Amino acid sequence: MTYTSAITVPLPYEQAVERTRAALADQGFGILTEIDVKATFNTKLGPEAAEAVGDYVILGACNPGLASKALAAEPQLGALLPCNVVVRRGKDDEQTTVEAIDPQTMVQLSGSPQVREVADDADARLRAALSAISKAGPEDS
Amino acid sequence: MTYTSAITVPLPYEQAVERTRAALADQGFGILTEIDVKATFNTKLGPEAAEAVGDYVILGACNPGLASKALAAEPQLGALLPCNVVVRRGKDDEQTTVEAIDPQTMVQLSGSPQVREVADDADARLRAALSAISKAGPEDS
Repeated sequence: MTYTSAITVPLPYEQAVERTRAALADQGFGILTEIDVKATFNTKLGPEAAEAVGDYVILGACNPGLASKALAAEPQLGALLPCNVVVRRGKDDEQTTVEAIDPQTMVQLSGSPQVREVADDADARLRAALSAISKAGPEDS
Repeated sequence: MTYTSAITVPLPYEQAVERTRAALADQGFGILTEIDVKATFNTKLGPEAAEAVGDYVILGACNPGLASKALAAEPQLGALLPCNVVVRRGKDDEQTTVEAIDPQTMVQLSGSPQVREVADDADARLRAALSAISKAGPEDS
């Protein structure tokens, strides 16, 4: 099965990351966590592992209102938060990939009706963010 | 279905958080991200939401070697990383709960044999960490 929604954009990596941040903010998501996977691998595993993974960041996006509703319904749901959005570009890639977790995975794992409601809302917002990123031309930033 | 492994421990919240950090480090996990949910809700939503969620932290645990193998097998798997470990205590709780994501959720969502291998390893390490936390007495820290 698929557990993400992905787009590819004809943008340099850094520009795609900035676009992603802006589009998530427009949809009410704060970025609560950020993992520079390439830098982490470089430090912990060495340059070969860093080169293999390529440019790769995991942004942890959270809409506090939605998170609060979800945790009220199901306290353990924090194990599935925040909603991750990956921006990545391997060294041979011609485009940059922006890939958001599909919040319906939460519904699949949880089964709670309240979680479904929150997931549907998060889903719509993440898809709107991806759509905005893919529509913006290189000249827009 | 269940998507976490949880234990409750007769420890104050702060002590449980410290125990959790130490036990994860002993199992080769670095803490790459940390979300103080109570503090975030307090800032973004106000004291009522913070009180409702109680003491609540989401620790993002990552074993770089395992993450590197997983991303080589399936580049989009970063959307499911790091492995979250929640430490939480509601205001009326008599114990603190430590709850790790079940890495088998990755297997369920991905289906890749390489991801299964990595998930099994992460699973064993997370369970060992929870076991160490639950065995340690209050006098140990």
